[in-house]
Amino acid sequence: MSSFAASPGSFHETRTEVRYAETDQMGYAHHSVAVSWFELGRVTWMRDIGCPYRDLERRGVLMPVVKLELTYHAPARFEDQLGIGTRLLELRRATVIFENKIERIEPEGRRTLLVLGRVELACVDATGKVQRMPKDLQAAFEPYLPPTSVGV
Amino acid sequence: MSSFAASPGSFHETRTEVRYAETDQMGYAHHSVAVSWFELGRVTWMRDIGCPYRDLERRGVLMPVVKLELTYHAPARFEDQLGIGTRLLELRRATVIFENKIERIEPEGRRTLLVLGRVELACVDATGKVQRMPKDLQAAFEPYLPPTSVGV
Amino acid sequence: MSSFAASPGSFHETRTEVRYAETDQMGYAHHSVAVSWFELGRVTWMRDIGCPYRDLERRGVLMPVVKLELTYHAPARFEDQLGIGTRLLELRRATVIFENKIERIEPEGRRTLLVLGRVELACVDATGKVQRMPKDLQAAFEPYLPPTSVGV
Amino acid sequence: MSSFAASPGSFHETRTEVRYAETDQMGYAHHSVAVSWFELGRVTWMRDIGCPYRDLERRGVLMPVVKLELTYHAPARFEDQLGIGTRLLELRRATVIFENKIERIEPEGRRTLLVLGRVELACVDATGKVQRMPKDLQAAFEPYLPPTSVGV
Repeated sequence: MSSFAASPGSFHETRTEVRYAETDQMGYAHHSVAVSWFELGRVTWMRDIGCPYRDLERRGVLMPVVKLELTYHAPARFEDQLGIGTRLLELRRATVIFENKIERIEPEGRRTLLVLGRVELACVDATGKVQRMPKDLQAAFEPYLPPTSVGV
Repeated sequence: MSSFAASPGSFHETRTEVRYAETDQMGYAHHSVAVSWFELGRVTWMRDIGCPYRDLERRGVLMPVVKLELTYHAPARFEDQLGIGTRLLELRRATVIFENKIERIEPEGRRTLLVLGRVELACVDATGKVQRMPKDLQAAFEPYLPPTSVGV
Repeated sequence: MSSFAASPGSFHETRTEVRYAETDQMGYAHHSVAVSWFELGRVTWMRDIGCPYRDLERRGVLMPVVKLELTYHAPARFEDQLGIGTRLLELRRATVIFENKIERIEPEGRRTLLVLGRVELACVDATGKVQRMPKDLQAAFEPYLPPTSVGV
Repeated sequence: MSSFAASPGSFHETRTEVRYAETDQMGYAHHSVAVSWFELGRVTWMRDIGCPYRDLERRGVLMPVVKLELTYHAPARFEDQLGIGTRLLELRRATVIFENKIERIEPEGRRTLLVLGRVELACVDATGKVQRMPKDLQAAFEPYLPPTSVGV
């Protein structure tokens, strides 16, 4: 599903399409669906860098979303082919920030920006208590920080 | 949210309304949403008979859906006020069957049938293994079986 | 569903509960669901001030979301009873900004803040072109602006 | 997304994966999501036989679901890779029946059946009135009827 490997500072891409169930009566994909697309991009990014989120949860490391910002530039429509861009923006002691973009990809390859956003996730244990991000997770994420950014 | 107590053989009712996010580009509530409305009716029914599903799960009793049948008679539209009817139909060793109906309720009280359906749930433990329904759960459900039906 | 009338600057409240279908495997309501709760609050607010969104769309006035900001303070869990607070924050030529909060309401009445956020909507015609907000809609909204805020 | 062309009587396949937002607190994909997977399979099937559903709706031909039957054999879990099987089962004057199956596909290729089901759709016009299926649509579907089945 993801079309190229993640690299520092650039967007990793996951492909999906707009499902009928995701549309609303305005004839667009409902705005809440972009939140799930961002998540799908993040999950694929983590799997592609060798750090599947599924395995993290099995170790008792949960990463709930604590902050969301989305700006909608153009609507997504049923059967639109989408590229979900994901890149790591910041890495802190117990939180991490991703940047996402959603683009419509026309059959001939032309792209239109639909949504831009940021997602901040916290690192918590199984009881919901905020914890420092595990060292191996931080080490796995760090190479993907943008060049100008300074990590923890 | 539920407007009257459950009684044997008759429908218990939970009220809700069609959310914008539940509509699709046909201008109706998406057909998959009826499945969640049935569930909302079931959850309220269980809470109203003194057996909250939340407490069951805490005891390690899970009730996944194993079979669904729905017939759609008329569409539900945005802001429609709905009555979710729920009644117990059958109680077996390790499964239970509910019947549900969704009706649109007009401001003046007139009702239109939108969806009819049946949901069969199994009783499983935390590992997903089918288990006999706990005796207290069966005892709590039995009084609500339809008069003509024969329980376990 | 809404428990009191809207008044300028204060939060209007719509009640709902966390549905099983809205939970995720973390055991919380999925973070994207808060976006739909905000919408449910907005829709009820509009109906309560005498301006149902359903009627607006029938006149060809659409109000797509163009910007979203959410901060998650505590998780919502299955069967939690929620209060969705909605208040008008700003009214511009062609956009409107609402503030929302989600609170868990315990049986004894105690409240816990779960989510805070802002939603900006644009006014567009049936072709998706941004248009000035209709005069009657603006007149209906204006009385609910916070006292210190200056409208268009 | 679809891995091979449709052929009469056999299952056409669309691939997808279980999204985090689709899980529930039981740790499985919520049972209502299978309904959307069936739809995704159907939409891809229609596009692959040269009859995109998007174009149908633009011509004023709507195909709402009127009947659903699903049997759940095993749960789908987060990040599971799924094959959605779709095949045409029956073609009547104004309705069409599809059969669907959902299988989990392990990295090494082994498949496990998760869900089986049938979906009946009606052909209606923009006002919701049932209409005879357009001749070109019927002609496009007919070659995919199972060999033993007799069409209209």
